[in-house]
Amino acid sequence: MIAEIIAAGSEMLTPHRQDTNSLFLTAQLNDLGVEVAFKTIVGDNIDHLTGAARTALSRADIVIFSGGLGPTEDDLTREAAAAALGLEIRRDGDLLAALYKRFAARQMTMPPNNAKQADILEGATVLANPNGSAPGQLLDTVVDGYRKVVILLPGPPRELKPLFTEVVKPLLAATLPPRYLARRVLRMPLIPESHVDARTAPIYREYTDIQTTILAGHGEIQLHFVSSKTTLFEAQARVDELTSRIEAEMQDAIYSSQGESLEEVVLLMLEMRHLTLAAAESCTGGLLAQRLTAVPNSSRAFVGGAVVYTPELKTLFADVPEEIIETYGAVSPEVARALAEGIRSRTGATFGIATTGIAGPTAGTGLDADKPIGLVYIGLSDGRETRVKELHLNGDRDYVRWWASQHALELIRQTLLTNL
Amino acid sequence: MIAEIIAAGSEMLTPHRQDTNSLFLTAQLNDLGVEVAFKTIVGDNIDHLTGAARTALSRADIVIFSGGLGPTEDDLTREAAAAALGLEIRRDGDLLAALYKRFAARQMTMPPNNAKQADILEGATVLANPNGSAPGQLLDTVVDGYRKVVILLPGPPRELKPLFTEVVKPLLAATLPPRYLARRVLRMPLIPESHVDARTAPIYREYTDIQTTILAGHGEIQLHFVSSKTTLFEAQARVDELTSRIEAEMQDAIYSSQGESLEEVVLLMLEMRHLTLAAAESCTGGLLAQRLTAVPNSSRAFVGGAVVYTPELKTLFADVPEEIIETYGAVSPEVARALAEGIRSRTGATFGIATTGIAGPTAGTGLDADKPIGLVYIGLSDGRETRVKELHLNGDRDYVRWWASQHALELIRQTLLTNL
Repeated sequence: MIAEIIAAGSEMLTPHRQDTNSLFLTAQLNDLGVEVAFKTIVGDNIDHLTGAARTALSRADIVIFSGGLGPTEDDLTREAAAAALGLEIRRDGDLLAALYKRFAARQMTMPPNNAKQADILEGATVLANPNGSAPGQLLDTVVDGYRKVVILLPGPPRELKPLFTEVVKPLLAATLPPRYLARRVLRMPLIPESHVDARTAPIYREYTDIQTTILAGHGEIQLHFVSSKTTLFEAQARVDELTSRIEAEMQDAIYSSQGESLEEVVLLMLEMRHLTLAAAESCTGGLLAQRLTAVPNSSRAFVGGAVVYTPELKTLFADVPEEIIETYGAVSPEVARALAEGIRSRTGATFGIATTGIAGPTAGTGLDADKPIGLVYIGLSDGRETRVKELHLNGDRDYVRWWASQHALELIRQTLLTNL
Repeated sequence: MIAEIIAAGSEMLTPHRQDTNSLFLTAQLNDLGVEVAFKTIVGDNIDHLTGAARTALSRADIVIFSGGLGPTEDDLTREAAAAALGLEIRRDGDLLAALYKRFAARQMTMPPNNAKQADILEGATVLANPNGSAPGQLLDTVVDGYRKVVILLPGPPRELKPLFTEVVKPLLAATLPPRYLARRVLRMPLIPESHVDARTAPIYREYTDIQTTILAGHGEIQLHFVSSKTTLFEAQARVDELTSRIEAEMQDAIYSSQGESLEEVVLLMLEMRHLTLAAAESCTGGLLAQRLTAVPNSSRAFVGGAVVYTPELKTLFADVPEEIIETYGAVSPEVARALAEGIRSRTGATFGIATTGIAGPTAGTGLDADKPIGLVYIGLSDGRETRVKELHLNGDRDYVRWWASQHALELIRQTLLTNL
């Protein structure tokens, strides 16, 4: 069984808006063992939409429309689906009554146009939508001798998502052969994709029944494994076996196998050991603190810190001696070290982490003027010992800042792994 | 002239990856006066891809493929386009020689598979790709009596984008009727979309020759105006006239009319007045500093500050008296005021900005335990006067933190507008 998703809406044919429902729908359909083979985005034009519906019916078993079920003239999905299927539309009395009631409850008169939200394809099942005025529709029919399942869903994600998971998914599951999916995601920071692939491909290629995807970006590699079997036990056992073998190969390069982010893992490791962290950020300018504090309950391990963008603030909040900055420049291993030690002793945290570097696009000033863009020093102090790492990052300002924050988190993780 | 964009690649039919090239291509095509009517996403399957190519040729004048030009078995765009057009593929001798040279320069032997990157559709123009090994192709032909322009582009954005702007766009522009586009974007923070629309629609509706788009999200409203005329002067004059009228209506609610972000505008206003800013962040946890320092040269106006996640750090870095926290709780107007005043006088900045609130998903502790999630106080001090704003935000942790940072920036902007 293959599916096509048709997203209807002219706004998705502008440079400003993208269809995002299809990512959600794809994950849900994959759960049912259904592969998405085509996605089509089409505007609010009856000819274009009807043509797209005909094309989809000719090449997919399941055709899912999202959007175009509203009350305006631009909402044409019902009409297009009916035309492509050669079906009539009937106005459903119960739905119409419910629409009138919905407006009355808000002391409003229903505009005549809204009545079309009670229009149903001949033979379709109405899918109640508790979060909006347009119901979904599901039609299980035969076109030119082939079974076709046609599903109409409202466009707003907060309507579409619960409607799919609560109503459509059980209906589809009941008519499809039973499939159970098990997934695992292994995440590794700061490691080249080719390196991961060279070491893991000989293992995962043995598992031809498991779908493996490698995703690279934002300073990490993700390995996604999906196993689809007729029992959940079998699927889980299979994907767990592969995961164990990859974990044995990559060991501590893997920071998470349940989907947790690097900042979540670092916070969890600190919290489990009753340790705390403070940060003194120059080039990352709050990004590291922001990533950590985006995690709920991060205050259990992260106390806070300082954003020390000027030389004065490095001295004021992290006790960096002025003469160190004057001698070596703000972007130096000496300043990274002093920042890490200073923020640690100032705040009383177990660890002090520090970043200083040249994020670009313009060069540093004074003693830092000749240092290259992308040069970053990370300092980590535990009170007894301070480690300083030198990075040469190659990218724009956002890239340098992100990778610096990623290296800082990974330095903490590696230190916690080896010391304790 | 209408266009269809076909994105080829099985990874875009998973829940993990989305086609993003089409947003860029749509903006570029719109510049040329070409509307995108369909977008299709299809996997690395020769039958699916050929079928999608046939469908596109039947409904669009310009068909642009992105992806599937690499050297692997999965790269099938050339073959599919040739099959749909009924054309032969020829292997280009010059391109093949260049490929061998490329590998030799890296002291590598070219795998035989890579030779297919020299395959060109009969009659197509080769589009040199300086950023990768696969050239683009452009074919201006006639199918069933209709002119069709077929363009094959490599998938990686850093190859596709320069190839389109530098090579394809001039080629297309030369064959299309001349069109000049002028654009303006007005941005307004923290204002309801309905409010903006009610006040501006009576004006922009008069300009039926200007395409107006309202985008809402991330705590701001954007009004996009695009005018398309046969001379640039005419297009610019028209869009400028509308912009002036909307600016007269919305006045200071508009923070930017050239696309600048709110943080850029705040930094620029501070810098022009030779003023500086420091931040003490509790609930935003570094997000405000991170947004400001993401702007190049932000250190000219933003000195830094402190992330004060614990009561102790509020006292340590911003001199908030312990008894204030003990009396009112950390999430209180009194603490917001003390944080703003404390970080200002500590750092010597002109302004001190502070955030304290309950971002969720869990409630506060101690005196803050009964305060609702989404309660946030923003403090802004200039040394003489301190303003405190109370917010009741309704959303998840990310939402509360983002809107709090947006309100903080807007409070600074409004203060600078009125005071100076």
